[in-house]
Amino acid sequence: MFDFTFHNPTRIIFGKDKENQIGQELKQAGLSRVLFVYGRDSIKRSGLYERVTQSLKDNNIAWMEHAGVSSNPVLSHTRAGVALAKEAGVDGLLAVGGGSVLDEAKAIAVGALAPDDVWNYFIGKEVTAALPVCTVLTIAATGSEMNGNAVITNEETQQKYNISSSHVYPRFSILNPALTRTVPPDYSAYSAVDAIAHVIEGYFTGQGVGLQNRLVETIVKTVMATTEVILARPDDYDARAEFMWGATLALNGLTKSGIGPHAFPNHMIEHALSAIYNIPHGAGLAIVMPAWMRWFAPRRPAIFERFAHRIFGLRSGDDGIEALERWFVAIKAPTRLAEAGIPAGDIEKIAANAAGLAAVWGIAQEYPKEVIADILRLAV
Amino acid sequence: MFDFTFHNPTRIIFGKDKENQIGQELKQAGLSRVLFVYGRDSIKRSGLYERVTQSLKDNNIAWMEHAGVSSNPVLSHTRAGVALAKEAGVDGLLAVGGGSVLDEAKAIAVGALAPDDVWNYFIGKEVTAALPVCTVLTIAATGSEMNGNAVITNEETQQKYNISSSHVYPRFSILNPALTRTVPPDYSAYSAVDAIAHVIEGYFTGQGVGLQNRLVETIVKTVMATTEVILARPDDYDARAEFMWGATLALNGLTKSGIGPHAFPNHMIEHALSAIYNIPHGAGLAIVMPAWMRWFAPRRPAIFERFAHRIFGLRSGDDGIEALERWFVAIKAPTRLAEAGIPAGDIEKIAANAAGLAAVWGIAQEYPKEVIADILRLAV
Repeated sequence: MFDFTFHNPTRIIFGKDKENQIGQELKQAGLSRVLFVYGRDSIKRSGLYERVTQSLKDNNIAWMEHAGVSSNPVLSHTRAGVALAKEAGVDGLLAVGGGSVLDEAKAIAVGALAPDDVWNYFIGKEVTAALPVCTVLTIAATGSEMNGNAVITNEETQQKYNISSSHVYPRFSILNPALTRTVPPDYSAYSAVDAIAHVIEGYFTGQGVGLQNRLVETIVKTVMATTEVILARPDDYDARAEFMWGATLALNGLTKSGIGPHAFPNHMIEHALSAIYNIPHGAGLAIVMPAWMRWFAPRRPAIFERFAHRIFGLRSGDDGIEALERWFVAIKAPTRLAEAGIPAGDIEKIAANAAGLAAVWGIAQEYPKEVIADILRLAV
Repeated sequence: MFDFTFHNPTRIIFGKDKENQIGQELKQAGLSRVLFVYGRDSIKRSGLYERVTQSLKDNNIAWMEHAGVSSNPVLSHTRAGVALAKEAGVDGLLAVGGGSVLDEAKAIAVGALAPDDVWNYFIGKEVTAALPVCTVLTIAATGSEMNGNAVITNEETQQKYNISSSHVYPRFSILNPALTRTVPPDYSAYSAVDAIAHVIEGYFTGQGVGLQNRLVETIVKTVMATTEVILARPDDYDARAEFMWGATLALNGLTKSGIGPHAFPNHMIEHALSAIYNIPHGAGLAIVMPAWMRWFAPRRPAIFERFAHRIFGLRSGDDGIEALERWFVAIKAPTRLAEAGIPAGDIEKIAANAAGLAAVWGIAQEYPKEVIADILRLAV
């Protein structure tokens, strides 16, 4: 087992109606004036906006609003949030939404204390401070509610890049599985793919021992089983709860501890897809993963055999990949570029974009542009 | 899934030679004058004492020593530590040892800031403050390195009671698997039993869903597989590492999140055994667990069947219990009272002692003295 440091100070408040204590929790966290970040109208239609603001009022928490966060949140909107946070002199961020809203709030938290432009921190500058971020999660998928990651797209340069810093772990995150009831079936499927991707990147590219491998397999099995229930019976609270906690554990450091050097090649390639075509992240991953697995499997045949055996009860690594792909098809996630309207003729352009991220992530040697293009051709 | 709060702020620094950075880590934690708590001579014989104190000197950390912590740490020694901590005006605790040393350090951390006697907090008074506790772990078993629990024995009253408080989560814990190399085989076996007990108490008495159940099964399998390797090849670093991290995850809140009301009846009964006879905790658990499982299995037959199937590939719940008991025998843990020199004639006395703890833990209705005696009779 490799050396590691594990430190995840985020407090998770999990269960029914927990969002109603948001004002009280913010007060206990020492905050009195927050920038309230959210997406479009859905939290107003669902009544969540009303419940959250009522709790803020009841606890004398002042707030400014920064609404309109898009999926694949963009830099221009983030910069507007930073300007607002600085101008209003807020002492923290309240993010209410899915991973995109949380990520933009984290970026604003960094930008609000930075002397320079927030994008600098996405292209390599170290984050040294951030305002406290607190969240109410409405879509389980990205794990942002319990980690130090945030992904933002610079829409001018078509770069979808990330920060990773201990400063942006949420102080607390409220997870009420019932709030995910409004997520439509296609996004439930994309969320499942995202959570699976979060654990298998390290599973296949790192060097886990029995414990970490079984933790990953546990999360994959959980995500698959509960997604099937959620799609069949959207009102099943327990399936939503199990999925939600599983998605959180998928990227909170647990499955990566001790596995040594590992990479996120599927995320790297997918970020190029959603940076250029603005497709949902999970949809892009469903396209990239089977292709990447077919390309990578010959390098680690034993791990792919174990995956096939433990997840699907199959013998060969190739059969395991095919079974996963068939499962993606069954939950109606796209597995080919064309299904997302991406022409095969764009592969060179996509590969060039992904290669830029490979350089930032330090995996350019293993993933030069030509290799990325080869992988993408397996998704035609 | 039941509502829960998960918050575990302990930083884990895991790997080879990590104890050499103890001084630096204490300094970064803002400490400059600590009470250095340890057991008997083993850390001096192994050279660990020398390495730790050298690092303290190198980083200008002043220390007072409180040595001689026993396994099943006792109140009188804890009180002496509290007096020393107060007199010396330390700003934190440094515990170097196994679970007993960590637990006594936590108790001292509470007592040092308490206006009254530290035992009050073990018999029901709420802990509201404690000095920071930092640890270097040398025996993997209790999970104390990443939780808010501490168990102390009042040797006058023969009460082995505990505190459970967010204030005594260690600030950080250094886990170097190589340090566990000096643990003798019998204590390796007892440690395995303890770690298994930590997860199965909630597994059988709570209401876990698929995710939590599989997490528990993963830890049980990990502990069993790695213990066999450790006993056969004591120098196997990877097995020690996997065991160590597995034992930490066994009682850090992970497997209990969302399982709802659950109890620790095996620990309750065992605490009576080690309070009266001062036997190793894990040895006591190996005696209690098969007996308790046989008594409890008819109440939750489906869970015992699942356990038998997933851990041992067996069909019936009874066979699963027998397989676990046989495994305890194979690793040379005692499974009958007589093996620990405890006469069957003492059962009433033991049951009365355990019933006292049942009252403190709020499970006296399910576990009156007569029931505890019935369970103990299954261990004759």
